[in-house]
Amino acid sequence: MNPMTTYCYLNGDIIPVSEAKVSVCDIGLLRGFGIYEALATKNGKPFRLADHTARFRMSAREMQLTIPVTDEVFGQILEDLHAKNGFKESIFRIILTGGTAQAGIEYDRGTPTFYILCEEFKPIEASNFTDGCSLITAEFERQFPRYKTVNYIEAVLLQGQRKEKQALEILYVHDGGVYECATSNFFIVKDGIVITPNIGILEGITRKVALEVARAAGTVEERPVSVDEMLQADEAFLTSSFKDIVPVVQIDDTKIGTGAVGEVTKKLMHGFEAYANAQ
Amino acid sequence: MNPMTTYCYLNGDIIPVSEAKVSVCDIGLLRGFGIYEALATKNGKPFRLADHTARFRMSAREMQLTIPVTDEVFGQILEDLHAKNGFKESIFRIILTGGTAQAGIEYDRGTPTFYILCEEFKPIEASNFTDGCSLITAEFERQFPRYKTVNYIEAVLLQGQRKEKQALEILYVHDGGVYECATSNFFIVKDGIVITPNIGILEGITRKVALEVARAAGTVEERPVSVDEMLQADEAFLTSSFKDIVPVVQIDDTKIGTGAVGEVTKKLMHGFEAYANAQ
Repeated sequence: MNPMTTYCYLNGDIIPVSEAKVSVCDIGLLRGFGIYEALATKNGKPFRLADHTARFRMSAREMQLTIPVTDEVFGQILEDLHAKNGFKESIFRIILTGGTAQAGIEYDRGTPTFYILCEEFKPIEASNFTDGCSLITAEFERQFPRYKTVNYIEAVLLQGQRKEKQALEILYVHDGGVYECATSNFFIVKDGIVITPNIGILEGITRKVALEVARAAGTVEERPVSVDEMLQADEAFLTSSFKDIVPVVQIDDTKIGTGAVGEVTKKLMHGFEAYANAQ
Repeated sequence: MNPMTTYCYLNGDIIPVSEAKVSVCDIGLLRGFGIYEALATKNGKPFRLADHTARFRMSAREMQLTIPVTDEVFGQILEDLHAKNGFKESIFRIILTGGTAQAGIEYDRGTPTFYILCEEFKPIEASNFTDGCSLITAEFERQFPRYKTVNYIEAVLLQGQRKEKQALEILYVHDGGVYECATSNFFIVKDGIVITPNIGILEGITRKVALEVARAAGTVEERPVSVDEMLQADEAFLTSSFKDIVPVVQIDDTKIGTGAVGEVTKKLMHGFEAYANAQ
């Protein structure tokens, strides 16, 4: 489907994406100055909306930006967009920039650019869930890992390499540690314990739900993870709002565990699905 | 002057800025994925155009972007914009993004978004040149220092602090080293030798010209500079395409040298001015 035929929200109006445009003077374009948020519907409702809204507000606060609507209006816009587009399930990409640049590098907090794209949710290939996916690693450290800024330069640059290697995602490693994927969080399982990095990462909402499900079923550790530990893990998986929980069976040239989808991961996937279906 | 009343270039056309808009699906907005270039006219001609064009091409190559015009056409657009706007001297801000995003994080190299803003050149306050300016420091390391990407998040965030301290610029330091300012290069003078960092920085074109002028007059060192060395310098100055050479007399709470504009800096300013006037 052509995303240009969908409806989006831009500064107060729901309009066709083909008509939704931003000034060339926007500080989001001139200085890459903006924040990003992404979520999906489950059963037609924005999934874990309160968590996404809270994170969006935190990113805005840290980046000195003002979200121009209340939480209530924000949720209503998402529901309106979903209804207007008529998708079974939707994904939303939310952008907030400083608006028109002043003196080239400043902006007025009172006049942000705020828009929300809505696309039809399309699940990734089923084989990722049944057989597991592979990752490539890249030596990289995000600049503001805790906040979801629009700076995805490294992630964009690595897409060609990712596709060439038929990997689903790019895993950022640096100084011998494992952090997060370009647009997902990363977990390992060792001796039945679910382990995920907790420093230098974006705290994903699907990561949060996966941790809730994992905690209800067993032991969880949120702590730094080394590359060596990752390579010797029994299982691995990633979490993302647009992908849910996806088993990882290969990282670069190394098979993880047996190279098949692990039992702990399978249970978490089922637990997550049951939780999501109950929303 | 309202920048919205100027003419800009956008994807082949010279149009009023008020009509120049970019799709909300542009990967420059969604993922901060773009490069930047900035230059000014001297005597009505783009100053050191060949150097700026070469750097722009290098940034494009490294960022996997394609500049959709030849060098000749690029120069012609700048001259046309300058003439159309009728300014005595112009500054140009050039943006190249990947164009419309595909699958949220990919793009087609064949359809970039390419635009050039043209504003009237307004010199900074004369007292900066006669009495020197002050800087604030910030602990920060740019992600792709050699390439001029649009990622100026840290620079934008620090503008409030810069203005509060009445500083002209923000000087990035990290791990005990001095690098560059947010939008300028940085130099010190010690025992008559002109010294500037050469690693982990953007190689500015005004920096290059300043080095040419300095080399013709004396000894120059391009090498790492420590914070301690900076604080004990006899003189300091910054260089930028929109500011030329500006003496620095204070950094945070420390006076540099005598706290007055240094003699070596003065000679360089005069040499630079003579060179620019001869263009």
